[in-house]
Formats: sequence, structure tokens, C-alpha cells
Amino acid sequence: MILTVTLNLALDVTYRVPRLRPGATHRVSVEQRAGGKGVNVARVVAALGADAVVCGFAGGGTGQVALAELDVAGIPARTTPVAGESRRTVTVVDAQAGEATGFWEPGPMVTEAEWEALLRDVTAELARAGAAVLSGSLPPGVPAHAYAILADRASRAGVPVVLDADGDALRRGLAGRPEVVKPNREELAGVTGTADVREGTARLRELGARSVVASLGADGLVAVTDDGCWRARPAHPAAGNPTGAGDAGVAALALGLARGWSWPERLTEAVALSAAAVSAPLAGSFDADAYRRQRDDVSVEALPMAAAREG
Amino acid sequence: MILTVTLNLALDVTYRVPRLRPGATHRVSVEQRAGGKGVNVARVVAALGADAVVCGFAGGGTGQVALAELDVAGIPARTTPVAGESRRTVTVVDAQAGEATGFWEPGPMVTEAEWEALLRDVTAELARAGAAVLSGSLPPGVPAHAYAILADRASRAGVPVVLDADGDALRRGLAGRPEVVKPNREELAGVTGTADVREGTARLRELGARSVVASLGADGLVAVTDDGCWRARPAHPAAGNPTGAGDAGVAALALGLARGWSWPERLTEAVALSAAAVSAPLAGSFDADAYRRQRDDVSVEALPMAAAREG
Repeated sequence: MILTVTLNLALDVTYRVPRLRPGATHRVSVEQRAGGKGVNVARVVAALGADAVVCGFAGGGTGQVALAELDVAGIPARTTPVAGESRRTVTVVDAQAGEATGFWEPGPMVTEAEWEALLRDVTAELARAGAAVLSGSLPPGVPAHAYAILADRASRAGVPVVLDADGDALRRGLAGRPEVVKPNREELAGVTGTADVREGTARLRELGARSVVASLGADGLVAVTDDGCWRARPAHPAAGNPTGAGDAGVAALALGLARGWSWPERLTEAVALSAAAVSAPLAGSFDADAYRRQRDDVSVEALPMAAAREG
Repeated sequence: MILTVTLNLALDVTYRVPRLRPGATHRVSVEQRAGGKGVNVARVVAALGADAVVCGFAGGGTGQVALAELDVAGIPARTTPVAGESRRTVTVVDAQAGEATGFWEPGPMVTEAEWEALLRDVTAELARAGAAVLSGSLPPGVPAHAYAILADRASRAGVPVVLDADGDALRRGLAGRPEVVKPNREELAGVTGTADVREGTARLRELGARSVVASLGADGLVAVTDDGCWRARPAHPAAGNPTGAGDAGVAALALGLARGWSWPERLTEAVALSAAAVSAPLAGSFDADAYRRQRDDVSVEALPMAAAREG
């Protein structure tokens, strides 16, 4: 089972409008489903036929709606209740421009007691997890080093961790020595202060990451690990919605850890799933045909350490 | 007590952003409170020290949040539960442009049994109401002539009705012979097919309205009634947010009906409250100082019927 922790679990709301006109009032159609990076990962894991469990905080009416949707989707959840209201992430889709405009609420304030309750819930689920994914932003109130604490719990349970976060949550999470850290180009540069992928990945490993898989958009992935370095690229261009592509890649990395795949196998799956997620309209879903087509043609190239430079 | 019926009761959500940029993702601050035109009316009535009760449909987590906010605000509610989720009306306020962009959800589908339950709840409250306000849009599923049915119930209970609606809901509601109908210029033209206020008000009265009070924005109000015709204008310009100005005027008209004020008294209060609502940031609130200042200086002019022409 892949355990995904989404501390800032959300209700993803999509409003569709013919044309977004600032200053006007729009009557909108509404679609909503549970969201947050870990939820997207769990959906991809489940779509691949593996077990996933969603942990995180859920509160208020918005939390209830998100949990009800997960239930309908068949994704098991063991969320921790909070007194506050779960956040909504509203995306306004302009049909004419084909453009998405996002409005992200900050999330509920989490009390110390709620955080302790989450640690208990996650620890209980770790007992049956093959890998754990820690991903996304931290809601107000949780410790800044929340991911280090969670990674340490996983480590004690013998469960390898994939960490996918940004900024301070990522920087401080590295102290928990996660097995795999998956930054994108901006996250890597933001945390390490260098735009050079080789230098950046080396710096993340110095700070505690055992392996680093940097996602470079259409340029694929670079993995820097104890077992070697690789560059994996998609053979076919993917056009569409890049939101959730990183989460699909993380799903593959977590499955690879749980199932003992080789690094080239993990990277092939991660590149193919990421590209297939771009071809699907919603984060957390992927185009199954595109996945099979991409997977057959991903190129994985072993790199000498010094060649892991970007480009 | 003033009974307000808000069939499409909403949770009004305000997102504040430094600058609205279509295509970008914004981290937003969130304020939310119960909304819908009848809720705004009830807030104004309560702020004037009179009793108000909110009726309407409320469902799901969103409905719960709206009801909890009404409770905190001290506005009694006797809402009818629905299985669907109450709608949210999201307003994005651009701090730099000072501009508001609205996204209005459609509201829950109402079943026939839920509609019958609402009729029972409203009828029970009518027994102790001095006037009833029927305002706003109809959620999917309620009869197109919902306001005619409700106005008829009020009439049988001896309770005078103010109807404030638009389009088909207004047109079909007139069959219930409401005591006062309050269209704005666009609503009047939309329902009667004429931009001429005198012709439009006459047409509404032919269709069933006993009196018509047309709101003309900064130009004030024109009232056409069995007792005479009046033009009431504010003496001082009001700058700010016009959302909710009409609801504040309706609050005055309902109080005037319940308390037997003369038409000039009703119109003076309605003009002053509308202008004072423009000076307040949120629909359902008004600037108390502006209200007193405006009220002292409203001009009310009796019109010969033929002079009730716009301008």
C-alpha cells in the first residue's frame, strides 16, 4: 500500500465560464473533487491497480464534501479531523482562452492537539505501507519541520519516503532523510540557490536527501542516487494541462520503492505517467493510451556524475 | 417581525488578491458569510433594531457554514433542509483596481418534497410576520411561479408582500398580487419590454403589482401606488459598492408596510438606507452615519401620474 500524506488536503473546485471578464459577474458551472498533491498521487496509484491510502487533515463542510468524493472514487482515506474548515482551491476555466485562473485558500489553522492526532493516524497506517509520499504545502499551525517529523516516523517503521514539497517545507523536511526528493526546476533552484541541476541535486543530498529526482518538464527527469545517475526523457511531446504531472511521476517513484523496481524502471514509469497526466484534463488522472505509448519509448541514459548538468 | 424568503440562499465568499491576473494562480484571503438578497434585507432590518427571520433552503456543508454565520450574527433562521449543497457566490476583489469579479454557483436542485416543506415552514412563520419579503433568484427545481404561490400564502395570512426579483421569477410572481414590487431600471425594462418608467410601472400594476417602487440608482426611487405617485431622491452623492443597495431599500419598504408608515416616510427611509448601503463595503450592511445624514435631506416630490416618466 502507498500511504500519501496531504496535510493541506483541499476541495478542488472548477468553475467553467465562457469568458473570464474581470469586473463582471459570471454564472458558473461547478465541478468539485478532493485535491491536494498527495490526493492526486493516490488517484494515480489506484488507477494503476495498486492500493493507496490518503492521510491528512479534513474539517468542516468542505472537508466532508472532499471525503465524500474520495469515497465515491474508491480511494480509502484515514484523515484526521480539524475544527477549522478545509480549504478550497478554485480554478476558473475560460473556455474561449483555454486558460485557467486559480484562487487558493490558505487552509485551516491546525492546533497542536490536531497535529499530534495526525501523527498517531499516520503512524498507524505506516504499519502496512510499502512507501509513503509526503507532498504539498503545510497548513497554518503545523510545525515548519513537519515533513522531517513524518519522514522520521516512516523511517522508524521501515517505510521509504518520497518528499515532494517547496520552499521552507522542503528545506526543513530534508532533516528527516527522505529516500527520494522530487523537486521541479523552480523548487530546486529556490531551495538550493542555484539554477544548476547538478549542483542543486548535490546540495539537496548534502542536506539529507538520499536520492534526488529533478523533474524538468518536457525535458524529463534527472535522477541522482547512490546507485548511479540517469537522465530519462519522453519520446513524444505531450500537450495539455501540466498540473498534476509531477504528482503522477511521484506515484511511479513511490510504487518503484514499494516494489523494488530498478532506477531505470522507476524513471521510465515516472516519465510516461507524467507525460500521460499532461494529456488528461484533471490533476490526478492520466490518459491510459498515452501512458502505454509513452512507456514503450522513454529513453533512459546513464550519466557519469559530472554529466548530470542540466541540458 | 419581517419575514424574508431567500430560496437561493448562498454563502457569500470574498477572496482578496493584490491584483487579479487571468491565467495566474493566486493565494487568497477568505471572508465568508450568509448571502442572498433576502439575507441582506434581514441584516438591514436587524441593524435597525427590528426583528427579522430568514427562510429559504440550506443544504450541505456550505449551508451549514452559512447558517452558523447567521447564528453568530444574531439573525434567526428557519431554513428548510435540502439534500443538495447550497451555492457559493464567490467575489474576487482586486485591491489594485478596486474591482470585484463575481462567480455565482447555480444552487442546489430542489425536490418537490423539499419545496412543499418550505411552504410549510414559511406558512408557519407568516403567522407572526408583519410583512414578508420575497427576493432573489430561484434555485433549480422550484416552480417557475414560486413567488406567486408564496405571495398567495402571505395574502391568506394577511401579511403584505414586497417582491424583488428579476425576469421570469418576477413576471410569474406578479400573479400572486404582491403589495409592493421593487424592480430596478433593468429589471423593469426586462419584464415589461419598455425603458419608459411610467409605462413600465403601469404594466407591472396591470400584471398584478398593487404598488411599484422603481429604483433608479443615484436618481432615487419612483413610487406608483393607489395613494399617489412620488419621486424620492438622495441629496448627497454616495460612492462605493452598489451591491445590496436595493436590498436596503427593500428593508425600508417592508418595515413601512409592517408599521403603517406613509408612502413619503417609506420612500425617505428607502432612499437613505440605499445610499448608506452604497457607503458600506458589504451587501447587507449600511453606514449608520451616512444613513442619518441622508435621511435628513431626502427630497420627496409628489408626482401627477403623467409625470412619473423617467427623468
